[in-house]
Amino acid sequence: MDDTGPAGARAGSTIEVATVRITAGAFERQLDTVAVEEPLEVRVDGETVAVTMRTPGGDADLALGFLFAEGMIGEAGDVGSVAHCGRPGDEGYGNVIDVRSAGGHRIDPERLLEGRRWNTTSSACGVCGRRSIDGLLERCAPVGEAPPVAPEEILRAMALLAQLQPVFGRTGGLHAAAAFASGGVLLASAEDVGRHNAVDKVVGALLRAGMAGLAPAGRAALLAVSGRTSFEIVQKAAAARIPVVSGVSAPSSLAVELARAAGIALCGFSRGDRLNVYSNAERVVGAAAPAH
Amino acid sequence: MDDTGPAGARAGSTIEVATVRITAGAFERQLDTVAVEEPLEVRVDGETVAVTMRTPGGDADLALGFLFAEGMIGEAGDVGSVAHCGRPGDEGYGNVIDVRSAGGHRIDPERLLEGRRWNTTSSACGVCGRRSIDGLLERCAPVGEAPPVAPEEILRAMALLAQLQPVFGRTGGLHAAAAFASGGVLLASAEDVGRHNAVDKVVGALLRAGMAGLAPAGRAALLAVSGRTSFEIVQKAAAARIPVVSGVSAPSSLAVELARAAGIALCGFSRGDRLNVYSNAERVVGAAAPAH
Repeated sequence: MDDTGPAGARAGSTIEVATVRITAGAFERQLDTVAVEEPLEVRVDGETVAVTMRTPGGDADLALGFLFAEGMIGEAGDVGSVAHCGRPGDEGYGNVIDVRSAGGHRIDPERLLEGRRWNTTSSACGVCGRRSIDGLLERCAPVGEAPPVAPEEILRAMALLAQLQPVFGRTGGLHAAAAFASGGVLLASAEDVGRHNAVDKVVGALLRAGMAGLAPAGRAALLAVSGRTSFEIVQKAAAARIPVVSGVSAPSSLAVELARAAGIALCGFSRGDRLNVYSNAERVVGAAAPAH
Repeated sequence: MDDTGPAGARAGSTIEVATVRITAGAFERQLDTVAVEEPLEVRVDGETVAVTMRTPGGDADLALGFLFAEGMIGEAGDVGSVAHCGRPGDEGYGNVIDVRSAGGHRIDPERLLEGRRWNTTSSACGVCGRRSIDGLLERCAPVGEAPPVAPEEILRAMALLAQLQPVFGRTGGLHAAAAFASGGVLLASAEDVGRHNAVDKVVGALLRAGMAGLAPAGRAALLAVSGRTSFEIVQKAAAARIPVVSGVSAPSSLAVELARAAGIALCGFSRGDRLNVYSNAERVVGAAAPAH
């Protein structure tokens, strides 16, 4: 499979912006480092299927992870090549990426449309997005058995996640995600203005390495994310069959619901020496039978 | 115009979830308060135009603000009624909202599709989302003249924003947005799992009060948001003609670009006694000619 490399062809992940800094009534001109946000148009065999606002870099992984989460591809073998359209120097180069089907296989954009619960049209009152969610929760195949993870291992991963955010350190403007194998080995990490993009990039990297989806060995044991955990983040973890998801901040109600249905241990407020387990506590060593 | 009231019909904005809290290796069962995330299906004259994951409450404002930002409605007068579909007690009640055109007027869903830059399909390589963004930046009518706002007023608004987050205080899981008139008077505020939803709710509330869009008087002078400012947030402020946007955290590169094009003063890291101005500093008292 071709690849565009870890960095997108267009621009870096930060730019310098002229700023006026105001501190206690004093004004000062300065340059500030800002995280880059640019649109990425994802095409499948030449047809546009999505445009997402993202931070350039890891575009091939982002495209693969996105298509995987949406159910369009089941494994890296479905894909023949991933490459930015056009040539370096062309206008807009680096902001369009084309995922080509593998020989003898055709990636079906209709599967994306079927999977897009948000675009379902219905004229009956009462048939709502919630019903689609309920359907998704019912259809969700639970993540299989995996060795439980020690709380200390989760917290070490969260501490490492913080160190894996060089651009956040310079801009304060990026989310991060990282996947770890059982035992705490880092498998992949990414930063992006969008948390969902950071997760897509990580899952895309796992896919390319054969470590997501149905691969029985070398699979990710833990997905660590900066900030909050929403439905969308847990959905992507469920698609990648990752049994433990840990966020720096709070989960949403629907993230907890989906984590329960998918058999995922969802952890939140995981910082320093503490964390909360919101679902499937048996996946966290010692958490299944706590004191009352 | 009918209204569903400030709170959605379905559920509140938080629920209690059974949790295992782990602190320095000690395990304890407890209930944790979690922010509710549920899908809201937005319909126009019975036709589904979008489904967004949101925190219930202010659904009518959310629908109005969303349709306004997408260019489907130009003012509250375009709208005849906004109401949840079905009846209380029906399955899914509260998660579908229908916006009906005013008599003699028809809200055109095609305008939404035209406005959806993310769904443009093109077969030519090199024609990309970035070009759509450039087109948007060129078309963007700059926000008109307004009295400059003092840095102290922006910082007071940010301090008030923090107090306007009762659900965040309980869950740590919600974003917030608030609009202020010149002089610092609070016009509207909202919390939501999605920052873009919080802004849509605020703009929707302004629209209903005749304080957004083309209304010359009583217009919002400042939009304050929790967290980071992305392209999408500035786009919504530009649609509502709000001249100053201030975030608690970092802006993205495209947020700064759009703010420049729209004539909006974009402020970031606005906390305590300091803030950075990233664009149109003449709208912030004293910032246009700072020391070098």
